[in-house]
Amino acid sequence: MISFESDYIAGAHPKVLEALIRTNLESLSGYGSDVYCAFAREKIKKACGCKGAQVHFLVGGTQTNQVIVSSMLKSFEGVVAAETGHVSAHEAGAIEYTGHKVLTIPQKEGKIAAKDLQTYVEGFYGDANHEHMVFPGMVYISHPTEYGTLYSKEELEDIRQVCDKFELPLFLDGARLGYGLMSSRTDVKLEDIARICDVFYIGGTKVGALCGEAVVFTHNNTPAHFLTRIKQHGALLAKGRLLGVQFDTLFTDNLYFEISAHAIRMAERLKELLKTKGYEFYLESPTNQQFVLMKDEQLEKFRGKVAYSFWEKPDAAHTVIRLATSWSTTEEDLAELEKIL
Amino acid sequence: MISFESDYIAGAHPKVLEALIRTNLESLSGYGSDVYCAFAREKIKKACGCKGAQVHFLVGGTQTNQVIVSSMLKSFEGVVAAETGHVSAHEAGAIEYTGHKVLTIPQKEGKIAAKDLQTYVEGFYGDANHEHMVFPGMVYISHPTEYGTLYSKEELEDIRQVCDKFELPLFLDGARLGYGLMSSRTDVKLEDIARICDVFYIGGTKVGALCGEAVVFTHNNTPAHFLTRIKQHGALLAKGRLLGVQFDTLFTDNLYFEISAHAIRMAERLKELLKTKGYEFYLESPTNQQFVLMKDEQLEKFRGKVAYSFWEKPDAAHTVIRLATSWSTTEEDLAELEKIL
Amino acid sequence: MISFESDYIAGAHPKVLEALIRTNLESLSGYGSDVYCAFAREKIKKACGCKGAQVHFLVGGTQTNQVIVSSMLKSFEGVVAAETGHVSAHEAGAIEYTGHKVLTIPQKEGKIAAKDLQTYVEGFYGDANHEHMVFPGMVYISHPTEYGTLYSKEELEDIRQVCDKFELPLFLDGARLGYGLMSSRTDVKLEDIARICDVFYIGGTKVGALCGEAVVFTHNNTPAHFLTRIKQHGALLAKGRLLGVQFDTLFTDNLYFEISAHAIRMAERLKELLKTKGYEFYLESPTNQQFVLMKDEQLEKFRGKVAYSFWEKPDAAHTVIRLATSWSTTEEDLAELEKIL
Amino acid sequence: MISFESDYIAGAHPKVLEALIRTNLESLSGYGSDVYCAFAREKIKKACGCKGAQVHFLVGGTQTNQVIVSSMLKSFEGVVAAETGHVSAHEAGAIEYTGHKVLTIPQKEGKIAAKDLQTYVEGFYGDANHEHMVFPGMVYISHPTEYGTLYSKEELEDIRQVCDKFELPLFLDGARLGYGLMSSRTDVKLEDIARICDVFYIGGTKVGALCGEAVVFTHNNTPAHFLTRIKQHGALLAKGRLLGVQFDTLFTDNLYFEISAHAIRMAERLKELLKTKGYEFYLESPTNQQFVLMKDEQLEKFRGKVAYSFWEKPDAAHTVIRLATSWSTTEEDLAELEKIL
Repeated sequence: MISFESDYIAGAHPKVLEALIRTNLESLSGYGSDVYCAFAREKIKKACGCKGAQVHFLVGGTQTNQVIVSSMLKSFEGVVAAETGHVSAHEAGAIEYTGHKVLTIPQKEGKIAAKDLQTYVEGFYGDANHEHMVFPGMVYISHPTEYGTLYSKEELEDIRQVCDKFELPLFLDGARLGYGLMSSRTDVKLEDIARICDVFYIGGTKVGALCGEAVVFTHNNTPAHFLTRIKQHGALLAKGRLLGVQFDTLFTDNLYFEISAHAIRMAERLKELLKTKGYEFYLESPTNQQFVLMKDEQLEKFRGKVAYSFWEKPDAAHTVIRLATSWSTTEEDLAELEKIL
Repeated sequence: MISFESDYIAGAHPKVLEALIRTNLESLSGYGSDVYCAFAREKIKKACGCKGAQVHFLVGGTQTNQVIVSSMLKSFEGVVAAETGHVSAHEAGAIEYTGHKVLTIPQKEGKIAAKDLQTYVEGFYGDANHEHMVFPGMVYISHPTEYGTLYSKEELEDIRQVCDKFELPLFLDGARLGYGLMSSRTDVKLEDIARICDVFYIGGTKVGALCGEAVVFTHNNTPAHFLTRIKQHGALLAKGRLLGVQFDTLFTDNLYFEISAHAIRMAERLKELLKTKGYEFYLESPTNQQFVLMKDEQLEKFRGKVAYSFWEKPDAAHTVIRLATSWSTTEEDLAELEKIL
Repeated sequence: MISFESDYIAGAHPKVLEALIRTNLESLSGYGSDVYCAFAREKIKKACGCKGAQVHFLVGGTQTNQVIVSSMLKSFEGVVAAETGHVSAHEAGAIEYTGHKVLTIPQKEGKIAAKDLQTYVEGFYGDANHEHMVFPGMVYISHPTEYGTLYSKEELEDIRQVCDKFELPLFLDGARLGYGLMSSRTDVKLEDIARICDVFYIGGTKVGALCGEAVVFTHNNTPAHFLTRIKQHGALLAKGRLLGVQFDTLFTDNLYFEISAHAIRMAERLKELLKTKGYEFYLESPTNQQFVLMKDEQLEKFRGKVAYSFWEKPDAAHTVIRLATSWSTTEEDLAELEKIL
Repeated sequence: MISFESDYIAGAHPKVLEALIRTNLESLSGYGSDVYCAFAREKIKKACGCKGAQVHFLVGGTQTNQVIVSSMLKSFEGVVAAETGHVSAHEAGAIEYTGHKVLTIPQKEGKIAAKDLQTYVEGFYGDANHEHMVFPGMVYISHPTEYGTLYSKEELEDIRQVCDKFELPLFLDGARLGYGLMSSRTDVKLEDIARICDVFYIGGTKVGALCGEAVVFTHNNTPAHFLTRIKQHGALLAKGRLLGVQFDTLFTDNLYFEISAHAIRMAERLKELLKTKGYEFYLESPTNQQFVLMKDEQLEKFRGKVAYSFWEKPDAAHTVIRLATSWSTTEEDLAELEKIL
């Protein structure tokens, strides 16, 4: 059986694993103070074109969202996000668990619009009772979004302008950032994200690592005593080397970008293959996640042969499924899929 | 420079790494639902001699303490622990962050006594104002303790009796459990712990894994929707295989016990070596952590040659340091140390 | 200037104040253990027609919502409420502060519908990823709602059926309950509420008391150690008598109902007066809060003469205002308003 | 039966009640924005000799401690307090419920010493692992303490110096402040407290009010959006007038100080009476709470005649009880007690 179930079905990219093997018996200090973390930090800062950046490593996506949001908000503030944003819908209330409300605004294909953000924040301050309400304290976006869609550079700049107007930090969840940056239909580069956002993270778990997310604070704005806050969340890894070595490898010789580009090529071929065969798409995604509107007889063909993610059932005769490619998708996987179709 | 700085200075045991390599490209489902997690669960249950046990995998020690304690306590309850317990002193307030007080009782060399526990709980219920106080809701012990010491089976049974009397679950932090079980001076086996405790964990991070702790609920008492609670804490690993493969390997062919026994042998030789050379010990530890009371001229010899952990400065002329062995300590390390001494 | 600004502009009903004076120098024990709290409990249980009810007194509405919701939910659960529900919109995140998400569903004039609730809960359990989401753990409704509207008995029964189906406790916020029960257009009695809900509260602050809300658990379902939980929220009043004496008085000789009925009569005359004068209503409210859609020239007449609450500005030429009557509204107030109009 | 059970056995001082009656039907705006709150704020600022002070009103002591501590601490900080401090021992974990640890230091008769505070904070910063620990973020003292004892001006200044050295805000819990200020054995005036502390509160509940504590921030250091934070804690009173009117009265014509002085006179006579009769004291308290070490035959005399608080049982033949006077204690109470003794 071939699998397009998710972008975390395989272990680590072979080069990442090799680096773990190569460094395995070195004696290294803990908690992110080792040399590989230091190397990785420098390479990431360079890749971001942001000398002043501060880079920290965490283990997973929900954890990273939770640590960043709760560390940056004041107690009476909430984070503004799309209704479909990961922090809002799919993190089991990890943000609320830290005492903060997720303030949702409308979305289209997973994206929020600058004008809806502006309307929301203006409405808040215009409300005579706003001192009895949760203050908007930061803005969360995901790129790619939960639907695989991407913001254009202009859309990001527009959101930034609203953030500037109301002094709201902008936080970008890049759990799948590589797949966004390497899309053939984007004008957003890593440097743009570093310039536009106050904080963002570069996903490792879904882009070649066993685990790990690299958090980048772009202008000397790491919350005070961040290591202590990370520890307090139970998120501090004793063997920080595990994250350092992986990111050091991913940011050596463009590996992160190359393997992301591979996944995009695979996704484009997957898309073309499905279109040729008459499959209909739920929405148009320019990244590695493809959402397909399947008739039930089409889905029947996949049974026992293709692993996918069930997404939703829009009506009795159809099912939306997600097919994801990743750095680990092979030509053979696609050839096998073509045979099945 | 040789290092006895901690038991997490190296990567993973080579066999663990080999297993990660061997399984790396298999397509596996996420969040702990893969076959390696299943294999590991079965092997751990067998090793515990506890068929009804429920095994869950988490990433690190503080995280595991936080998730277990906050999932088992009611909101008005706190966890009873030694003043020196890791949950009390060295987790940056991770327990309090989830809304619960750590209720401290006296300790001796890191251990609590059944009678002090009983005095505390009786005192609580005897206080006319106890409804205005935090209720004791569970008991936390570490084994080995933060000072490398061990409970005897009798001491554990006595604590259990007090727990039974007051219906308090007993939780054992086994971040270094292997080194406790393989001590030459213990009568406590893994089966005893599984029988005596309501929940405990088998540390991987410090005993051969890159990361990971195996939580064991011993009598069908996993908190409801535990996966959701783990997610809510930001503690759910997408690639659960990373934990499953490691623990599957550690519990195959007694690896976990063998590498722990190796560390103990190294610790005993380290201790003998130091004693022979006239070094004084801060306390008598039967496990892999040794606390040495160093004169300043003795410490001088280590400079640039032996990495250690500073523990405390009892007076101007002395320093307590910790030297730790682990699965990764070698004969060469000891030979080198002998030369330096 | 006359005031219809809110239903908490005056102090306490004179009879309530008299009772405070009469009992002022009696030596009474604290924290709700005094005889007046006991008397009040019995009278409320009788008024509810619910012998097994358990009655507790708290100080204010947001506090009561926070204490009840956080005491009844498990940590991985949220409370389902209307988007406009007080717990969702106007409590500064008091629910989230205790770690729980407010799960919002659509509303109409402040009310939720049983079928929308059912759709939501079914959708939750139908979602393949629901273990990564916040579980619905209880249902919150307000009666009267934030828009002064009322549920019919049938609507409440329908919501109850959905709650039964999914084993969700039903919680009714009765901050203005008296004004709902005494509406001329309701078929819902206090006994119905006690029968249909798992927990609700009878608002004192807005219905004749200086402060105070009487919480009623209807079937022996007070959370364990509720006094300790109240204390933990900072919500336990030392002089519990202040609440006991007030509610004892309000539930003696039907005072609570009589003064509520007075406010309703005043509201009906206010409504008629405004309609006669050609004023348009934003929505049809059968209780003491009236929402009027004012042209700006109409609003001009009120300046400096009538105190009201600004609600919202639907367009440039109109303003929605709220006029509230209460037990303290007088014939003179209405006569004065008529002159101004 | 006469009662010395606590200092909150009676309602409000008659003048306070009269003011509530007099203002009862005035239409006033809510949430502390009324004129009586404004009057009270001015009078308190004047009494404190601190023009720049900011005064806020809350309902009860535990609530006030919780709101102040959680609003002033950063998430990774805890509050330093005596082991016997109210925030540590008798608030059902209200501080921990907001995510913060109470960091306890030794005490003597309820008081902490500047040198112990210094030792603690120096020890914290001297610990190599302090980034893995809870940072001390503020200092809490109570005056009078939970044992009725008082700090001298010099002791307070010494604590202040340590606070200055480590930039720790100093918070004084004045739940019984009046009884401390009017003691015949104190050199500490309200102006001293306002000068030495960063924030403190003037207790109303135990000194003449039905409820209410007046929080004073002494140098423009009210946490941002404090009203929103209060609301978020469920601590915002709709009818803020209830607090404003009471404190306005208590700070008119020195009422607060006069009634406190009365309680002190009663306490001194109580103490003398007991000493004359050969009763032994558990400790020497210069305020309104007296702790008496009773032989069991002595206690027998009280049965059914004198209400007191049970404190503890130091041995089988003795009991420590607390007898409290207050503004409401009368000459008759003492005469009656004398008869019983």
